[in-house]
Amino acid sequence: MTLIDRFTADYGKVRKIDAFGYLDYLRTNPDAPRKHGKVVLVTADTPLKASRGEGKTTTTIALIDALRARGIDAAAVLRQPSMGITAAGSKGGASGGGVASLTHPELVDWGLCGEMAAISAAQNLLVSFAEKGIDEGLLDTVLVPRVCEVPSRSLRQIAVDRGKGNIPERVVLTPTCELMQIVILSRSMEEIGRRVAAMIAGTKNGRPVAFGEFIDLWRVTNILTDAVKPALTETKGGSPVYVHGGPFANVSIGIPSLVSVETACALHDVVVVEAGYGTDAGAQKWLDIACREYGAQWPSAAVVVTRATTWRDDPTLRWRYPFHVNRLEGLDIPTFPLINLWSGEDDEVDSLKATARELGFREPVVGNLFRDGGEALVPQLDAFVEVLTASKGADHHPESHKGMPLLDDVRWVARSAYGVPAERVVPREGFAQSLQSASDLAAAAGLDINDLALVAVKSPATMTDDDHAPEDRRSVTLKKVEIHAGAGLVHVNLTTSLTTPMPKIV
Amino acid sequence: MTLIDRFTADYGKVRKIDAFGYLDYLRTNPDAPRKHGKVVLVTADTPLKASRGEGKTTTTIALIDALRARGIDAAAVLRQPSMGITAAGSKGGASGGGVASLTHPELVDWGLCGEMAAISAAQNLLVSFAEKGIDEGLLDTVLVPRVCEVPSRSLRQIAVDRGKGNIPERVVLTPTCELMQIVILSRSMEEIGRRVAAMIAGTKNGRPVAFGEFIDLWRVTNILTDAVKPALTETKGGSPVYVHGGPFANVSIGIPSLVSVETACALHDVVVVEAGYGTDAGAQKWLDIACREYGAQWPSAAVVVTRATTWRDDPTLRWRYPFHVNRLEGLDIPTFPLINLWSGEDDEVDSLKATARELGFREPVVGNLFRDGGEALVPQLDAFVEVLTASKGADHHPESHKGMPLLDDVRWVARSAYGVPAERVVPREGFAQSLQSASDLAAAAGLDINDLALVAVKSPATMTDDDHAPEDRRSVTLKKVEIHAGAGLVHVNLTTSLTTPMPKIV
Repeated sequence: MTLIDRFTADYGKVRKIDAFGYLDYLRTNPDAPRKHGKVVLVTADTPLKASRGEGKTTTTIALIDALRARGIDAAAVLRQPSMGITAAGSKGGASGGGVASLTHPELVDWGLCGEMAAISAAQNLLVSFAEKGIDEGLLDTVLVPRVCEVPSRSLRQIAVDRGKGNIPERVVLTPTCELMQIVILSRSMEEIGRRVAAMIAGTKNGRPVAFGEFIDLWRVTNILTDAVKPALTETKGGSPVYVHGGPFANVSIGIPSLVSVETACALHDVVVVEAGYGTDAGAQKWLDIACREYGAQWPSAAVVVTRATTWRDDPTLRWRYPFHVNRLEGLDIPTFPLINLWSGEDDEVDSLKATARELGFREPVVGNLFRDGGEALVPQLDAFVEVLTASKGADHHPESHKGMPLLDDVRWVARSAYGVPAERVVPREGFAQSLQSASDLAAAAGLDINDLALVAVKSPATMTDDDHAPEDRRSVTLKKVEIHAGAGLVHVNLTTSLTTPMPKIV
Repeated sequence: MTLIDRFTADYGKVRKIDAFGYLDYLRTNPDAPRKHGKVVLVTADTPLKASRGEGKTTTTIALIDALRARGIDAAAVLRQPSMGITAAGSKGGASGGGVASLTHPELVDWGLCGEMAAISAAQNLLVSFAEKGIDEGLLDTVLVPRVCEVPSRSLRQIAVDRGKGNIPERVVLTPTCELMQIVILSRSMEEIGRRVAAMIAGTKNGRPVAFGEFIDLWRVTNILTDAVKPALTETKGGSPVYVHGGPFANVSIGIPSLVSVETACALHDVVVVEAGYGTDAGAQKWLDIACREYGAQWPSAAVVVTRATTWRDDPTLRWRYPFHVNRLEGLDIPTFPLINLWSGEDDEVDSLKATARELGFREPVVGNLFRDGGEALVPQLDAFVEVLTASKGADHHPESHKGMPLLDDVRWVARSAYGVPAERVVPREGFAQSLQSASDLAAAAGLDINDLALVAVKSPATMTDDDHAPEDRRSVTLKKVEIHAGAGLVHVNLTTSLTTPMPKIV
């Protein structure tokens, strides 16, 4: 029995890993056998719409299959897709496609081992205790939203205790809730407990009341016992895939749990982390939240996936893909363009490569990964493997933005991740008031809002108010601010696009 | 590998059984090795309050440990307790106590493998589709309630789409919802699909609209893939225990799933089924719903658990325990009184036995099962084992009440299960109208309300409007009627006690 087997159990067709226990063992036993895997980010071009992916999961699967075929111990870490969105028909699952698939995509797409459901129950328990706080005079507003795994436009705004209290509440999709963020960012059950204690339940006479002031934390942590354990499954090609954490890098953080990546890094040499939707969403969150503020590993390389049509066919959106590749290269992350061909596009390879060369990219990796899987990639990975071999791995520690005034941080993200300069980052009417309220709420909870990590909330399909506009007219509108004191995050809603954590069912 | 192993998989510290697959295999392979176990019902005295059990689970565990110690292949089937109620602190778990416990009570008490959470998600998906039906003009009311695993008084009545549609909805605890009933009563995924299709989503111009008219059933059945599989765990003494189905025999059916009991009967000689709360709730539902209407096995024997204090110390409630024992004996079910002693009560054994003898009971089984577990029972089970050996098992087929006018059926339950004659079964103002509305709704859905199986909805701690009243003044008030067309059930709310499927958090 190897070390990791002591922290692993079968759950039907997947395995679950006690990552907290395993990583704690490694911390307290520095001589225990382990690896120090390097992180590779697989991200993508900004999609044309939320439901149309470029093929990140397919690429991630093909990439680890190809690396393993070349004798490299590679693994992938995926977020769990939203069962609710899949069940409602808004989107397919997120478990690859064709040859580049998981062995049991139905498990990953349809609720896995109940992780997200347990987080739903725990977050809703918190809201029930907040309502009890209202009954007992501890609170006069409920700020923490209920959650639902399945979408419903009607649930965006609800009134509970109808006909009596008529207390306003909100409902959000489970993956976007603060407790999901806490599970993703925490490295122990004690940390989860501390963060839940710091969550703001609501207000009393305008002052924030944290859950730690009036609930027993074990009620929440007991529900989460199994939900904090990453699942381990595999690709059809037999490569290991860890799955943990909720999606939606546009309206939340949408990254895999930090401990799932750290566990994979202790077990494999190369760990491919999927960060979606586009580079402006998932990669921005991984780099600027996970790495910059929560000690996650800076990537040794990145792969930016696009379909030929996304990148090329709309002249007014053609700027986005090179912008993403250049942004990551500018951060000293060796970045490989990957063009995921669809049926009938095989004869475009030469012209795609020529265009990439003109744009100054590294030699792009091109293949029909649905049809050919990792085999399409094996002969194209020399430069990629060379970069990984040369990388020093976890040595790069980016500067934290803690303490940077929130508006400056928003401007920094707009400039570096969306290409919009400060003068065209424009507050909408009411934004200043929303910022002031959030700052005051943070201050009353003993926090400086500038110490919270910024979560840009926006449409997955746009980076600016109008991505079709010419560069010198692109702007970012600031809409509102909301703090997640327990997770240590501040959400700022950006751009004029509709963004809602509770979509309409389709 | 034995036959059942082919239908079983490890899920952490429990196993999950594909009961649909196993039972289907047995149906199509009549020569496959199997047993024909006899069902024993463990039920109880009516508790003094919902949160104070008599020790049914403890007894069930001790009983199978004792039977196995005597060389009999016995197993138990339990319902899963409500995690929400446990987490909210309203009630401890339901996994036995002391020596008579499960090996991993925390798993059973805290969400098991996510079965109830999956049912929550699926029922809420149905409601989201009903709301979409409102948006699209298919419906103008939503009748199917949302569910929540954790209690909240505030959720009893909500308005969704607040400030716009203000559509009234209800929220009930997951264990009480129609989809839970469908999972408990169905013997195949196809049957679940058919029953979901027959669920009434809401109304359009007063006419019922069933889900089968406008949703894809696979969306719901895919979510339930693992939730329909009973879990297998064991007692500290090593006896097998199957767990499947939600609790609350007072506000719903609250029995284990039919397939969990049938699977256990194919694998063991004696199958002890826990039916709570009191005999008037859990046992009444098992006998009159599961056996009478859904083909479940009539019990070969029953054990009625009480604490000495419950049975004896309140002179105005002392009638209830003998009433229960005599009722079951009157149905030709050999019924064994079991007095579950608490600390300090050992010297009461002789007087308890003497009283039991005066009441004409069979020789009671007496023991401190928390302290002594099955060992306390081993020497007392001669008569019990004799009865089981003599029983012909599944041969008794009770008459269906299908087609009996609903009011007559209610009167029949009041008389036989609560001891109240027809003339003191009294409709409250509004009841006749509620009955008429429910009958009309059923008729418009193509059903005769008298063909639905009656679910008496009442307080777990009372059988009548006032159990303290003298026998000739006890009455049952009829409050309202609600149909669950998919599950094939009609709920009738009884007695003046507060009964709500969404309790206040404590």
